[in-house]
Formats: sequence, C-alpha cells, structure tokens
Amino acid sequence: MNRQVFFISDGTGITAESMGQSLLTQFEHLKFDTQTIPYVNTLDKAEQAIERINQTYQLTAEQPLIFSTIINPEIRAKVATSQGLIFDFFDTFIKPLESHLHTQSSERVGKAHGVGDYDVYKARIDAVNYALSCDDGINHQDYQRAEVILIGVSRCGKTPTSLYLALQFGIYVANYPFTEEDMKDLCLPKFLYQQKSKLFGLTIDPVRLHLIRQERRANSHYAAFKTCEYEVASVEKLYERECIPYLNTSDCSIEEIATSILEMMSLKRKQF
Amino acid sequence: MNRQVFFISDGTGITAESMGQSLLTQFEHLKFDTQTIPYVNTLDKAEQAIERINQTYQLTAEQPLIFSTIINPEIRAKVATSQGLIFDFFDTFIKPLESHLHTQSSERVGKAHGVGDYDVYKARIDAVNYALSCDDGINHQDYQRAEVILIGVSRCGKTPTSLYLALQFGIYVANYPFTEEDMKDLCLPKFLYQQKSKLFGLTIDPVRLHLIRQERRANSHYAAFKTCEYEVASVEKLYERECIPYLNTSDCSIEEIATSILEMMSLKRKQF
Repeated sequence: MNRQVFFISDGTGITAESMGQSLLTQFEHLKFDTQTIPYVNTLDKAEQAIERINQTYQLTAEQPLIFSTIINPEIRAKVATSQGLIFDFFDTFIKPLESHLHTQSSERVGKAHGVGDYDVYKARIDAVNYALSCDDGINHQDYQRAEVILIGVSRCGKTPTSLYLALQFGIYVANYPFTEEDMKDLCLPKFLYQQKSKLFGLTIDPVRLHLIRQERRANSHYAAFKTCEYEVASVEKLYERECIPYLNTSDCSIEEIATSILEMMSLKRKQF
Repeated sequence: MNRQVFFISDGTGITAESMGQSLLTQFEHLKFDTQTIPYVNTLDKAEQAIERINQTYQLTAEQPLIFSTIINPEIRAKVATSQGLIFDFFDTFIKPLESHLHTQSSERVGKAHGVGDYDVYKARIDAVNYALSCDDGINHQDYQRAEVILIGVSRCGKTPTSLYLALQFGIYVANYPFTEEDMKDLCLPKFLYQQKSKLFGLTIDPVRLHLIRQERRANSHYAAFKTCEYEVASVEKLYERECIPYLNTSDCSIEEIATSILEMMSLKRKQF
C-alpha cells in the first residue's frame, strides 16, 4: 500500500508541495500517493481537511504524512489536532527567525505567491508576452530586448525553457531554431551574430531527439536518427567554434535547464 | 541596510527560494537582498559559497541568513561552518521522516526537480505544446483534448495562466478570447457549448484592465475605460447566466489563479 501524503496550505500549496516532494524523493524505494489541500484559510476548512486526513488514516491503517505551510497560528494549531504526522514548516522556522531578526512576524497568509504590487505582476506578464512574441525564430528585429537568446535544433527544449524562464524568473528570452537546411556550412545569421553575448545553445542526445521527433512526425526524414545525429553534431560544432556556452538537455528537467542557463549567463533571478 | 539572504542548494535552488521567500514575506516591515547559489554539489563549490557568505558578513556587519536545501550530508556539514545563520531544511526534517518511515533516505541530489523518467517529461512538454497550439482561440477543433478551457476578455490573464498550468501541473488548457464584437447578445459559440463542463471564466477589475490595455494600445477605443467596463460586465453576465465558474484575477498572482482553477474544477495536480 502506498503511503498517503497531504500537502496542506492556507495559500496556493505550491511551497508545501515543493518542500514535501523534495523530502519524499529522498525515499525513492517507497511509493507515495499525494494530495494537495490549498486555501485552508478558515477554521471550517481546517475541520474539513482534518476529516479527510483522519478518514484516510482509517481507510489505510497507516498514519498519513502532512507537510504544512499554514501561516495563521490558530488554523495551524487546529490542523495539528489531526491524526496525521505533521511536518510543519512555519512552526519549525518562524520562531528562530523572529528571535534572530528581533521582531515579530506578521502572520499574513499567502504572501509567498501573492500578486504583490502591480509593477511586479506586469514585469512577469511582459516577460511571458515577450517570450511568445519571439518564439521559434519570429520577430528577430526585437532581439535587442532579450536577456538571453536560446538557439538549437527543432525539439531540443527551447520553447518550454523560454516560457519557464519568463514565468518563474521574469527573464526576457527569445529563441531561434536551426533547421536542416541551415546545417550545411552552419554559421550564425547576422542578427544573431549582433547579439552574440546573449546566445545560449541547447543540445540533446540524438537518440532522445529521434524519440521526440517520432512522436511528432513518425518515420519522416525529419525524425530519422541519421538526421537527428547530423543536426546535433552540426550545432555542437558551431557552439564550439563560436565559443557559445551550451547545455545538453537530455537528462535535465525544465527547472534544471532554466537554472543552469541563469548560472552560466550570470542572469539575476527575479522573485515573484 | 537591507538584510542579506542566501538561498543555497545542490540542485536548482527553487525549493530553497520558495521556502525562504515564504518565510521572509512574513517580515514585511524588513527589507532583504536575496542571492541564490544553486548547484553547490562539490566541497569546492561549498567552499566558494562560504567565502561569499563570510565576505557579505564582513561587508555589511550583519549576519546573513541562509536557507539551505543541500541534501548531501558532507556538503551540508561544510556549508554549516559558514558565519551565516543557517535554516537547514533537510537537517530539520529528514531525520524525523526517516524514523517515522523506518528507513534511511537515499541522500541523492536534485531529485525534486530532476527529469525523472522520459514519460513524465514528455507529458509536461506535451501539455505546454497543447497550450500553445490552443492559445487565444486558435485550433478549437482540438478542444476535446482540453482538461479546462479558459474564457474571458482580451488581457485578463488567460495566456499566462494557461502556460503556468501546463508547465507547473501538466494540465491541458485551451483558452478562448471574447472580443468587443462578440459582446452584443453575448452567448457561447457552439464549439464552446459542446465543452461546457470544461469552461472556466476569468474576469478582472475594469480599472486594472484599462491600465493593462493602455500599455498595449494607448488611448485606443480598445483600451478605453468605457470599453473595458462594458466588456467585463458582458462576460460576467454570461458566466452567471450559463453557470460557468469564474474568478476575478485582479488581486491574484498567476500561482493563485492557477491553483484556484484546479480547486474549483476538481483537477488533479501532476507533480514533476
């Protein structure tokens, strides 16, 4: 029987999930069923959450794990009366932090992923709109606004990475694809050369690329392993020759690709 | 002088940021300067991080705060010798979790945002591709694959929300805009009516909408407050009449909009 896990929060639950998952992945030999209960911001909702937790305990005869990021002390105390085993994030860290900072916390809910002020929100949306407007090689007259320009062959992860960098970190990202036609005597088009310091190359294992392209256009010349191998070798040669920093995305999550780019390009993360 | 804060991790640093930020936002009367140091996965890099922390201490004469999610015990112990005040996530929670689960953790780095297996990665990329392929009313013959279809006036937050739901939770989201021409006798087009149980409405404060549209097309009819007010009132009437669940996005972050939609539509979050 899988272990039952609850991520519980008076906000979005995203911090509770991220903290809980990072702990649970350290027990890879065990299996977990996870449920997120966000917006537990009243005593009534706490009551309902407790009921769900206790019923799960009865059903499975194993004590559920609870990762909680509830900020309100009263609601937190209430949830602590459930029969689950609680790992309480704020209970653990807020007191030592208060005593170090010689001040009281405000115990206000939902600030971590709150909208904050309009300018911050706008900066993030603007970054997303920019990424969409400069996706897949379009609109390269607008590249001077980019903080980084991702380049690489089709289906190596440029678009999801661009969108993630924009949404999570507010970075202005353009991306430009090299097609098979570009491969012979591959060199940088002038509009990329002019922004050379912003270029970041993505590459990918040809076997993985073949698999991805097969999904898209099965048994096409585009998806053939030979084509993938040729394109990948060509762009890697270009990156080396032009001293463009690059990353192999094959074994990376989108988060890993995005944060590696920030590090390698010395870009500052914006926090939302 | 702002308090200096380090988010430090042997992985992407995203969990450390999310945990640290959610604590710091509880001290809204204080100001913090934050730096993220990801991929501290060797003793050498730990040494460099310590140097950065200690130098900051000397420079500011205030003890920096460190939020750490380093998993490797040796590197963690090393970082603990810095002169900063450490809030160590794994040190705090992994032991009680081990004892409760009657097993040892594997202490492997970077699993929280690791690529995991190919299928999981692919599911997420597919969701992003779907969101792009069904953005802004295009491709509505493909709406039967959607888990949710966001509707609303232009610039109320549909596209960023769709992309966030796809990237963070792997949800298949389409979005469809109502334009001013639709407003007279506003009703659902047939292809939306056929998917009615998947519809979710976004709405927005007309003043906020006016501000956003002004940025895009200043002093246009499109951006005029009167137009915004009219369009918002029309779609809200439609939502009410057709019993479509909806949310006002004006004071919400993208995370809040996305997680509220999951809750209200009873959609299960996929974890990556």
